[in-house]
Amino acid sequence: MANITKKVSWSGRGEERTPLLNGSEEVRYSRQSSGGSVFHIGRLSTVDLDEDITPEEDPVRSKPKEIPHNEKLLSLKYESLDYDNSENQLFLEEERRMSHMSFRCLEISRWVICGLIGFLTGLIACFIDIAVEYLAGVKYDLVKENIEKFTEVGGLSISLILWAVLNSAFVMVGALAVAFFEPVAAGSGIPQIKCYLNGVKVPRVVRLKTLLVKVFGVICSVAGGLAVGKEGPMIHSGAVVAAGVSQGRSTSLKRDFKIFEYFRRDTEKRDFVSAGAAAGVSAAFGAPVGGVLFSLEEGASFWNQMLTWRIFFASMVSTFTLNFFLSIYHKKPGELSSPGLINFGRFDMDNVQYSLYEIPLFIIMGAIGGVLGALFNVLNYWLTIFRIRYMHRPCLQVMEAMLVAAVTATVSFAMIYFSNDCQPLETVTSEDYPLQLFCADGEYNAMATAFFNTPERSVRSLFHNPPGTYNPLTLGLFTLTYFFLACWTYGLTVSAGVFIPSLLIGAAWGRLFGLLLSLMTTGKLVWADPGKYALMGAAAQLGGIVRMTLSLTVILVEATGNVTYGLPIMLVLLTAKIVGDYFIEGLYDVHIKLQSVPFLHWEAPATSHWLTAREVMSSPVTCFNRVEKVGTIVDVLSNTSTNHNGFPVIIQAAASEEPGKLCGLILRSQLIVLLKHKVFVERARSRLSQRKLQLKDFRDAYPRFPPIQSIHVSQDERECMMDLTEFMNPTPYTVPQETSLPRVFKLFRPLGLRHLVVVDDENRVVGLVTRKDLARYHLGKHGLEELHLAHT
Amino acid sequence: MANITKKVSWSGRGEERTPLLNGSEEVRYSRQSSGGSVFHIGRLSTVDLDEDITPEEDPVRSKPKEIPHNEKLLSLKYESLDYDNSENQLFLEEERRMSHMSFRCLEISRWVICGLIGFLTGLIACFIDIAVEYLAGVKYDLVKENIEKFTEVGGLSISLILWAVLNSAFVMVGALAVAFFEPVAAGSGIPQIKCYLNGVKVPRVVRLKTLLVKVFGVICSVAGGLAVGKEGPMIHSGAVVAAGVSQGRSTSLKRDFKIFEYFRRDTEKRDFVSAGAAAGVSAAFGAPVGGVLFSLEEGASFWNQMLTWRIFFASMVSTFTLNFFLSIYHKKPGELSSPGLINFGRFDMDNVQYSLYEIPLFIIMGAIGGVLGALFNVLNYWLTIFRIRYMHRPCLQVMEAMLVAAVTATVSFAMIYFSNDCQPLETVTSEDYPLQLFCADGEYNAMATAFFNTPERSVRSLFHNPPGTYNPLTLGLFTLTYFFLACWTYGLTVSAGVFIPSLLIGAAWGRLFGLLLSLMTTGKLVWADPGKYALMGAAAQLGGIVRMTLSLTVILVEATGNVTYGLPIMLVLLTAKIVGDYFIEGLYDVHIKLQSVPFLHWEAPATSHWLTAREVMSSPVTCFNRVEKVGTIVDVLSNTSTNHNGFPVIIQAAASEEPGKLCGLILRSQLIVLLKHKVFVERARSRLSQRKLQLKDFRDAYPRFPPIQSIHVSQDERECMMDLTEFMNPTPYTVPQETSLPRVFKLFRPLGLRHLVVVDDENRVVGLVTRKDLARYHLGKHGLEELHLAHT
Repeated sequence: MANITKKVSWSGRGEERTPLLNGSEEVRYSRQSSGGSVFHIGRLSTVDLDEDITPEEDPVRSKPKEIPHNEKLLSLKYESLDYDNSENQLFLEEERRMSHMSFRCLEISRWVICGLIGFLTGLIACFIDIAVEYLAGVKYDLVKENIEKFTEVGGLSISLILWAVLNSAFVMVGALAVAFFEPVAAGSGIPQIKCYLNGVKVPRVVRLKTLLVKVFGVICSVAGGLAVGKEGPMIHSGAVVAAGVSQGRSTSLKRDFKIFEYFRRDTEKRDFVSAGAAAGVSAAFGAPVGGVLFSLEEGASFWNQMLTWRIFFASMVSTFTLNFFLSIYHKKPGELSSPGLINFGRFDMDNVQYSLYEIPLFIIMGAIGGVLGALFNVLNYWLTIFRIRYMHRPCLQVMEAMLVAAVTATVSFAMIYFSNDCQPLETVTSEDYPLQLFCADGEYNAMATAFFNTPERSVRSLFHNPPGTYNPLTLGLFTLTYFFLACWTYGLTVSAGVFIPSLLIGAAWGRLFGLLLSLMTTGKLVWADPGKYALMGAAAQLGGIVRMTLSLTVILVEATGNVTYGLPIMLVLLTAKIVGDYFIEGLYDVHIKLQSVPFLHWEAPATSHWLTAREVMSSPVTCFNRVEKVGTIVDVLSNTSTNHNGFPVIIQAAASEEPGKLCGLILRSQLIVLLKHKVFVERARSRLSQRKLQLKDFRDAYPRFPPIQSIHVSQDERECMMDLTEFMNPTPYTVPQETSLPRVFKLFRPLGLRHLVVVDDENRVVGLVTRKDLARYHLGKHGLEELHLAHT
Repeated sequence: MANITKKVSWSGRGEERTPLLNGSEEVRYSRQSSGGSVFHIGRLSTVDLDEDITPEEDPVRSKPKEIPHNEKLLSLKYESLDYDNSENQLFLEEERRMSHMSFRCLEISRWVICGLIGFLTGLIACFIDIAVEYLAGVKYDLVKENIEKFTEVGGLSISLILWAVLNSAFVMVGALAVAFFEPVAAGSGIPQIKCYLNGVKVPRVVRLKTLLVKVFGVICSVAGGLAVGKEGPMIHSGAVVAAGVSQGRSTSLKRDFKIFEYFRRDTEKRDFVSAGAAAGVSAAFGAPVGGVLFSLEEGASFWNQMLTWRIFFASMVSTFTLNFFLSIYHKKPGELSSPGLINFGRFDMDNVQYSLYEIPLFIIMGAIGGVLGALFNVLNYWLTIFRIRYMHRPCLQVMEAMLVAAVTATVSFAMIYFSNDCQPLETVTSEDYPLQLFCADGEYNAMATAFFNTPERSVRSLFHNPPGTYNPLTLGLFTLTYFFLACWTYGLTVSAGVFIPSLLIGAAWGRLFGLLLSLMTTGKLVWADPGKYALMGAAAQLGGIVRMTLSLTVILVEATGNVTYGLPIMLVLLTAKIVGDYFIEGLYDVHIKLQSVPFLHWEAPATSHWLTAREVMSSPVTCFNRVEKVGTIVDVLSNTSTNHNGFPVIIQAAASEEPGKLCGLILRSQLIVLLKHKVFVERARSRLSQRKLQLKDFRDAYPRFPPIQSIHVSQDERECMMDLTEFMNPTPYTVPQETSLPRVFKLFRPLGLRHLVVVDDENRVVGLVTRKDLARYHLGKHGLEELHLAHT
């Protein structure tokens, strides 16, 4: 593991760093021996010249045995996505050839794609729901029967074993699929989608195989009784569907439908992926507006009205589809009024009131949620570090998942067994699995409704069961055990979400909170509805863990079907966020950080005005001439030690020794396509003989461009020249060297750039700012800190 | 009126335009006679050199007698706002001096300000509501008594006259205030706030006086019985509150609290104004999430998470404040469950169902809403043109408003008088003013509930009154008359919103639609609830007029307090938007266009890849040297024919005749402050003797910088030099000349730029792109069209 570090100290006013005086730069360039000219334009300064070589990825490097976990590292293995269009001549020609009508058609196909995304996402959600319900139903019926049989005669340990084995079996199948077929399908996938929308290329995250494993995995893990939800993975599934549908082909299935070719680039794909993520949220919670907000809060940078509407449309279609098919499944066709995978059920109108004096109570609950959420995140953080260090072998991962499943079953069983919270049967709704156990006839075990059920139903019971259904001890014990189980479960090598377990934990302690209040102030009718406090607790806990506010408010409001609680939910979520942020970041951000992903936040760190583009940029930069020797290009691309992805193109003044002016920017992927199609001219010939390449050739190669090693270039061909004029982006965005880091950030982040060229007063290239150069600065406890770059 | 036009034809592939070949530009410069050197860097081309002089504003020009109305014009009277920070040395020094702690404090004060904004906006909403309720109550009681007295004895014409005179009196007072004190307070203010957030400086739009007139005006016009709502103006009020509070001083009251000085610049102020607008929506509809979405949909460009949360906080506080004080006023203190100025009332749980086969019906309703909305907009468009042409004298405007008030009263009276739709009294809620008129005892006139009421209450009646309360004829006639009244009313010189009248029209025809369906399919119980159709009709009509979708969906859902109708409301709004957009733009956009505001839409026109920065930029550009002669600066600033607001600063190579390289950008406002403080150096002296200026001096002068004419510069001072290095923005964003218009747009719009410098390969200034250069291109019926610039 090679750490290329850059040591700069920020203490005081930065006097230890000697800033270059204006105009004092020295510029070097070197002619390569092979005859072509590659310029290394750099500067001589007090810092080492090699410091800034930031190779973007090394695809051929073998996977290291033990993955380091240092959160002060920034991984170099992640490439960036090109969210800035390369407006080269080919592209401009195509755009100019298009009539007003063609743009209309494109717009319409965008809508059609969004509709398709919504429809398919809804279908997937529907499939998952039905499969889980069916499998869980079979399992619970089996175990219930067994328990009932052995309750009288003794020998409940057999029931326990049955339950544990069933659960472990389900989980094993799911974990096997994830660990051996597609590890990126593990977890909820939300951090990955966040990264994707941020502009980081997470390998294999939007492939068909990932989707299949994800869907299969989530069914297994939920049916396996783990403390997980099926909602988070829907977001990932929606995103994969979107990435697939919008490209009009499947590389995995080797089918190209020759449609939607225009959308085969990162910019367009990203827009569809945000729509897919929104459709996923929408299907999961029956919350179309919440889905749009989720997409925007977590992913978007530049808010575009038309895009937002399309996202909204996809969300709508998704909820509608799910709703429609579920209504048929539930034999009430055409009744569309209870949408979503999780439904919080209807809150009774007469009880949905709250009073001014309850507001402080809600704020206290928010604070509790913030603290508990932070605790959850801290525990999970340590656990994840442990896992990264010691648990990276697939079979170990599968075994851990099975262990968790068995422990979950055992603990649940023990809790049910030792609980003596008996409640009369009439309070139970028909859809639960009431266990009588050692209760009197006509009664059932209340602890069992919480544990012996899918988590969604447990949440609903906590919200809606009438006062007195649970006793405080049951709730307390349940909160405690479920908290640790959920914390242990998140990060396992299974496909699973953290939304529902969080809601469940929160609902349990929220209900407990309500009950205790009610006990303290007996007589007042207002406290009679612990369901309200369960809802607030659920919001607080979820907010404390994931730290979303606006979108989560809307999601919860849409899921409860009632806006009256909007205001208190907001208050609770805001408090939970503020309190939680004091201790640690949100769960998703923790995981993103642990993966050392170069994630760009919304704004540059507050105290970073000290830094200028000159200090953050990578330099020296490898540049190409407008007409460059093929051999040189091949050599540069093959250089595994630098492995750059973008190269400024320069014009050199004729017969001058001076370095040339910037005239464009070309990407590795574009060069690869050019080399593959042998777009060469022999030295003597004119430019016209160069083979004509079309935008289609680039689109066909997208997004899996072959590595340079797979392209054979003969010795003769190496001597040919390549004219880059047509293919480079002639108008890359540039900044002067004196630009402050926040200003660079303000240009880089909203425009979704990948390379930002730094130029001097004469428009000569002096450096290149990439995602890593910006992501490495972050605000730590002691002011601005710098992350180390690492090849992990 | 001088139209500076630029004639370019776009037919075919643009062959008629001779593009300049690369490198063929000729660059001229001229030394001014006064000794200083002002460069006019331009190009010699086939088009006239004078074509691009685009003066930004001419404050001394007298108001023209008759205002032209041509929507193909782009007014030059609007300045832009500086949403891009000028990161000059002073600013950077301040930022670098600030510790981590100071940034924390700033962040906290931002939250405090947002809280204050929400609180004050809520208070204002509360005040308006109580005042309107009280005045309308007095009026209706008076008229009702009078009518009851005269119904038996005849002589109802006296009642009519009483009603009409009362209404006209109220309206007259309101219209007088608006027309003579603050014309910018007319209307709902939403188009103005849209423009402000877009970056256009609408004069006096966020001043204290505007707020006072607005509040007073809206109370008068609603109490005066016009077909208007009090909701739209709340958005404007919130924005003014925000602009005031965030600056920590009032220029009008000449009070400076010496707080929040950091926020005295356009960038920060804009963020608070979005919060204010959101708080306004939130107070108006009890829709905090809707408010946030409104702000984002209508105004924001770059979505920033922290900002969004602050906006959300302001919205929450605003709803909460309104809610709290209204609950005290309504003598139910502490009951916070029915928020907002307009409350759609609770939809009964049992009726909030819809079925699959109703979806097509909703879509049809959306289409009807789109058509009716477009009709409304077209009629209002013609009316507004008429008004701009002939009604620009304040007394005429007041008279028109009075006329409308009288006609509204008369028409309503006639409708009530000739209606014979009598309904039993028991269906009426206590808060209405039931008129018996010629009905039997124990019955009341149904037409009167629609007309003889504040519009908010009429909407509520239409939503909730049980089936059979209105007969179809009543509804039809009501729709027809109210449609034309509302259309005539919008655009009057009174403060008033269009939300409620739209909802009312829609609710009426929606209920009619439901009734007719019910008549056609007698027997089916599903049609029994016309309230549902009234709600959909209201959504369709409002969507058809204003064309918002996402935010409007959330606002309506929050106002109904029930998310079940979320999906159908979305469908209806989307359909209404698509259908409406086929005919004409939304009402606010129509008005913005009629004011010839250089409004930047979300994206560049689709077919504008033809154009490059070279063609759209303004050129020649007036540049300054880094150390410039004071006399030259004064002359340039005083030149009323150009009146530029931003000037590139260049460095000239020593003793060379070549034009210099770009090294910064300075604003007129900065130069004005420099001149005011006499920051000069005498020719012989060193740079050190220049008076030190602080950022505070600039902040104190913001935002009302004095005109250049008010600054006296003596002849000696004219010979002094001024060093701009410290004050200019040393890193302005630049683009090369070949950059396509969409790419320029993509940089300009999200970053909120005001000036974008166009440079050549050598980093020399060749042009400047401003808002007008981009806003003038728009997509017309026959492809890309260009607007004419005009001094209106």
